[in-house]
Amino acid sequence: MNNFNFHVPTSILFGEGQISHLPEALQTYGQNVLLVYGGGSIKKNGIYQKVMELLGTDFTVTELAGVEPNPRLETVIKGAELCRQENIGVILAVGGGSTIDCAKAIAAARYYDGNPWDFTQNRGLVGEAIPLVTILTMSATGSEMNGGAVITNLATNEKLGMGGQSLLPKVSILDPTYTYSVPAVQTAAGSADIFSHLIENYFSRNTSASVQDRIAEGIMKTVVNYTPIALATPTDYEARANLMWSSSLALNGLTGKGKEGTWSCHAIEHELSAFYDITHGIGLAIVTPRWMTHVLNEQTVGQFVEFAVNVFGISREGESFDIARQGIKALYDTFTSWGIPMTLPEVGIDDSKLRLMAEKAVEHSTIADAAFVPLSVDDVEAILKASF
Amino acid sequence: MNNFNFHVPTSILFGEGQISHLPEALQTYGQNVLLVYGGGSIKKNGIYQKVMELLGTDFTVTELAGVEPNPRLETVIKGAELCRQENIGVILAVGGGSTIDCAKAIAAARYYDGNPWDFTQNRGLVGEAIPLVTILTMSATGSEMNGGAVITNLATNEKLGMGGQSLLPKVSILDPTYTYSVPAVQTAAGSADIFSHLIENYFSRNTSASVQDRIAEGIMKTVVNYTPIALATPTDYEARANLMWSSSLALNGLTGKGKEGTWSCHAIEHELSAFYDITHGIGLAIVTPRWMTHVLNEQTVGQFVEFAVNVFGISREGESFDIARQGIKALYDTFTSWGIPMTLPEVGIDDSKLRLMAEKAVEHSTIADAAFVPLSVDDVEAILKASF
Repeated sequence: MNNFNFHVPTSILFGEGQISHLPEALQTYGQNVLLVYGGGSIKKNGIYQKVMELLGTDFTVTELAGVEPNPRLETVIKGAELCRQENIGVILAVGGGSTIDCAKAIAAARYYDGNPWDFTQNRGLVGEAIPLVTILTMSATGSEMNGGAVITNLATNEKLGMGGQSLLPKVSILDPTYTYSVPAVQTAAGSADIFSHLIENYFSRNTSASVQDRIAEGIMKTVVNYTPIALATPTDYEARANLMWSSSLALNGLTGKGKEGTWSCHAIEHELSAFYDITHGIGLAIVTPRWMTHVLNEQTVGQFVEFAVNVFGISREGESFDIARQGIKALYDTFTSWGIPMTLPEVGIDDSKLRLMAEKAVEHSTIADAAFVPLSVDDVEAILKASF
Repeated sequence: MNNFNFHVPTSILFGEGQISHLPEALQTYGQNVLLVYGGGSIKKNGIYQKVMELLGTDFTVTELAGVEPNPRLETVIKGAELCRQENIGVILAVGGGSTIDCAKAIAAARYYDGNPWDFTQNRGLVGEAIPLVTILTMSATGSEMNGGAVITNLATNEKLGMGGQSLLPKVSILDPTYTYSVPAVQTAAGSADIFSHLIENYFSRNTSASVQDRIAEGIMKTVVNYTPIALATPTDYEARANLMWSSSLALNGLTGKGKEGTWSCHAIEHELSAFYDITHGIGLAIVTPRWMTHVLNEQTVGQFVEFAVNVFGISREGESFDIARQGIKALYDTFTSWGIPMTLPEVGIDDSKLRLMAEKAVEHSTIADAAFVPLSVDDVEAILKASF
């Protein structure tokens, strides 16, 4: 196990009705609130109205609406400007990962004089940040319990990560009933995203962080078990609750700290989203089984056997490569059963930019050196070609 | 899943050599340090000398040595008095769970005018506390990452819990090499303690907190896998590291939040320790399989099947009660294989106080109403009698 620092001070308020604690969560940091949200679904499902009712006249609320599914640099710049103008003391993000990520970038950009895109080039530039409180409405990215964010620069077709300890939400309210209205396709994409975070940490050259891996398998089993239930019965509280808490635990360091390694599928998928603006979780579901097949070899087969046996209950009896392939197939079939379109053409991606995206995936990450299995441009292109 | 608040702001510095960060961990809270430790093993293995060398002349250190394996109220009172006299700004606990628990009680007692034993009767009395930094030397109680403590009142033969959010360590340094010198019997007892924390959370009337249960199974598998390795090769870093991180994660809320219920085996074991001052983990190992057998019934058999299958890899094919009993036997055999004395007479307990201890276990807890399976005095006595 590698040395690590695990420090996740976010206070999680989990369960139905926890929004009642919102005023006390905010008032520690002041009365001037920037309310950040997305396309307006929170007005349809009543969360917006509930927030406004709770904040009443005790808080001054400035709104930043319309955060994009892949939040854009321009929105971050606009939000930071609002924070300066309105002397914002606390940001309240209500939404899924995109909204929370955007709020994090705004929180740091408020205290940074340059272009916030710089944060994606140099994490050391993220310093002081406005305190952040979140209300989660979708189980997916885990942004509600970590300090990471991903923002998109459409001008350059780039979608890159940033982060810092100061960006960890102070309080995150996780009410599973707020995900009842998430459409099936987004529910499936969210579960694929959770699963991918676990996979990316799990398949590492470091095999000595066993407790992290056994925990990852446990969360994977939970996602595999409850996603079909949430799809069949969107208002199943138990399913929504287990998926929501899984989303936070999949990417708060619990399964990744103590292990090194660059994430492979995210590096590849970020190029798909950057060039074609597709849903992140869908892109991950398409790429992951192809990546697995590509990196299965004599050195890695043992880890794929553990995955197959411990997550999908495949028998340990038999030939290793056969067991490994059964595990990969089980994952592919799982994603398919959730209704996810499992090829690139189905999400509007043709073969015209595969090479370019492969080049960018290598350029924007360290997958050529530091991934589970190092990936060259040719490797990435092969994985993308296999996704047709 | 029940509603819950998960808020664990302890900063974990994990790995060999992390003690180098001790000065910066302490100086946030001041220069006046109360150093709390136990029987002197930290002088034998060199940790004491390393601490003193790192603190040098920048800190003023007051020592409280000799904390007992089941820390006593008198020591808490003495420590609190020292804190007042010496104007202590931060407590540094170096040791296992007993030392850390004692330090927590001292941290709260410093600001409390009454007898600190009151904390065990009314948790609301725990308010402000001196900041606590810990250096862990034994993988067992999880005290390094939670706000709980257990203290013993020998005058009344009582061993009871207390706790509060203010008692969470600010920083905990977890260096697996510090556990290399833990003797085999203590290593086994520590692993039994970790396992018991997982078991106590796992067997709950609430079966809807699935992600918690799958995570608990993953940590249990880790403990079962690595304890024999640590026993055979005490300096196996990988084994010691996985056990150490398991100890923290087993009792920081990760596997227990979102589930209700009173712990059964701890309530029973605390009486064994209170009356006979035995090692906590040994007492838990003796009681747990007998408790399991006692509470196995039509309502609970399903959960015991999951335990048997998911933790010990027992086949799901067959009759439920048979699978359940195989799981209980696997746990008993596991403890036995660790060299734990598995009967009460072997740890010096005869049958003269079984009824009294059973009465106290029920009196000191809510196991008669709120346990996984409610336990009367007769039930507890039967479990103790089965431990011969």
